[in-house]
Amino acid sequence: MNKDTFKREINDKVRLIDQALDNYLFNSAAIPETLHHAMRYSVFAGGKRLRPVLLLASAEAVGGDAVLLLPAASAFEMVHTYSLIHDDLPAMDNDDFRRGQPTNHKVFGEAMAILAGDGLLTEAFGLITECCVSGNISPETVVTVIKELSQAAGPFGMIGGQVVDIHSENQSIDKDVLEYIHSHKTGALFKACVRAGAIMGRGSAEQLAALTRYAENLGLAFQITDDVLDVEGDSGKLGKTVGSDERLKKATYPSLYGLEESKKLAADAVDRALKALDMFDREADLLRCIARYLLEREN
Amino acid sequence: MNKDTFKREINDKVRLIDQALDNYLFNSAAIPETLHHAMRYSVFAGGKRLRPVLLLASAEAVGGDAVLLLPAASAFEMVHTYSLIHDDLPAMDNDDFRRGQPTNHKVFGEAMAILAGDGLLTEAFGLITECCVSGNISPETVVTVIKELSQAAGPFGMIGGQVVDIHSENQSIDKDVLEYIHSHKTGALFKACVRAGAIMGRGSAEQLAALTRYAENLGLAFQITDDVLDVEGDSGKLGKTVGSDERLKKATYPSLYGLEESKKLAADAVDRALKALDMFDREADLLRCIARYLLEREN
Repeated sequence: MNKDTFKREINDKVRLIDQALDNYLFNSAAIPETLHHAMRYSVFAGGKRLRPVLLLASAEAVGGDAVLLLPAASAFEMVHTYSLIHDDLPAMDNDDFRRGQPTNHKVFGEAMAILAGDGLLTEAFGLITECCVSGNISPETVVTVIKELSQAAGPFGMIGGQVVDIHSENQSIDKDVLEYIHSHKTGALFKACVRAGAIMGRGSAEQLAALTRYAENLGLAFQITDDVLDVEGDSGKLGKTVGSDERLKKATYPSLYGLEESKKLAADAVDRALKALDMFDREADLLRCIARYLLEREN
Repeated sequence: MNKDTFKREINDKVRLIDQALDNYLFNSAAIPETLHHAMRYSVFAGGKRLRPVLLLASAEAVGGDAVLLLPAASAFEMVHTYSLIHDDLPAMDNDDFRRGQPTNHKVFGEAMAILAGDGLLTEAFGLITECCVSGNISPETVVTVIKELSQAAGPFGMIGGQVVDIHSENQSIDKDVLEYIHSHKTGALFKACVRAGAIMGRGSAEQLAALTRYAENLGLAFQITDDVLDVEGDSGKLGKTVGSDERLKKATYPSLYGLEESKKLAADAVDRALKALDMFDREADLLRCIARYLLEREN
């Protein structure tokens, strides 16, 4: 798959996901208006839709029909969005901008931002159950995916990573703690997206194991690249202040390993992600391209 | 069922629920320690366990085995607890005490209180799926209950009620808005507990409809009694400052209907709740007693 085809395929998937999210989220005529407005604001604040794209691409890699899984893909994006809204709160990272736009609490106030996040998280679990109705997915499979999401997003996954991240501000931490933070805060949900796609697409146990290795390494490469971009990125393209990790004195891959070694670690992780896909033929090309072009991203 | 038997039955159920919650919530040796500590703190801060008791009692009313439903009952209590933690935050009701103890953010800080709430909500959805494993409940039924919980706790249920409640502070609101707030903020989760018990206990459609009417009226009676207690209760027994609704200039049943009329409205709602149980024999006695003794409660 060349770069143009890749971009077209990604854009097609993003369009499907945006339409689905627009369908599932109530418009601001629903009561209470401000709440629905606040929920939509952050969901449509320029996210790259990487997580739902991964879910759909993973389903296709095992021969599943991506369109049937749009409720689940949208649900994972809603969980990701909720986590960003809560992470940006004054009591947490206190960020005024994300992706170049004012954060949720800057627009709607703290109370509404907390509740909009709560709302997205709560709706997400309900939305996955729609796959039974519209996607011909068995209730047993839906229950499995709900359990995966709960674990990945919960205290032993994303929330646990965020807690350790907050505790580590202004602390000198070692490589193990850095790895814990990233594998939980970002990695767990990445992995759950890819696994959900494979499970709902009826992949075999071997396929699921291979895709899990792919996702683990992709998540790692993604996080290292994020840290690198925070040091040397273009704040216009990034939509946030470059150097914000240093401002918060957060430990990052560049601060622990140096910039060049960090780039090498990211490239190694991408290699391992690609190798994990060896058992697949062309049906995994989109997953391969996502990994390859990850290192070239600018935001 | 006389009052002593009732108290014994309630205590037995509360003990089962407390044991289950103690089992399902990780102890503070789990990482990250503070997070698990914060989650446990509020779950074991003296809640009456009314929602999980209702779930179990409703299951028994339709001939189900309550013990098998402890994961679901615990999950509903965790969702209730998360909502209290977030409602108490400085950006929301800014309460320093609940049930006579410092609120979560007073002990663990705002960031941890937000994350502890998020953690409980996320874990709750995963915990319900355990009913498939330990409770011999079909995945289809579990999916139905997850959907009920998502709707009851989400933007069209509890969260919607909280949003309108916040918007209504210092506003003069009418009876319709007051009813919206209560039926959503408290009523929706009450109803979902009772319905979840009936659904998982394999009740008939008629039984489910009757129990839904029971729950709607019980929730209403509960909320009116809450408002009445805020005016004339004993702050020692209540564990919070009497008159806090007036301080926040919240509209309440007593402020809109007067104290005597409010008590009559609560009694009428209890009568309707009892009448809804007419089709049941003695197996619904616990539900009847809960409604009857609700009016006598002191906290």
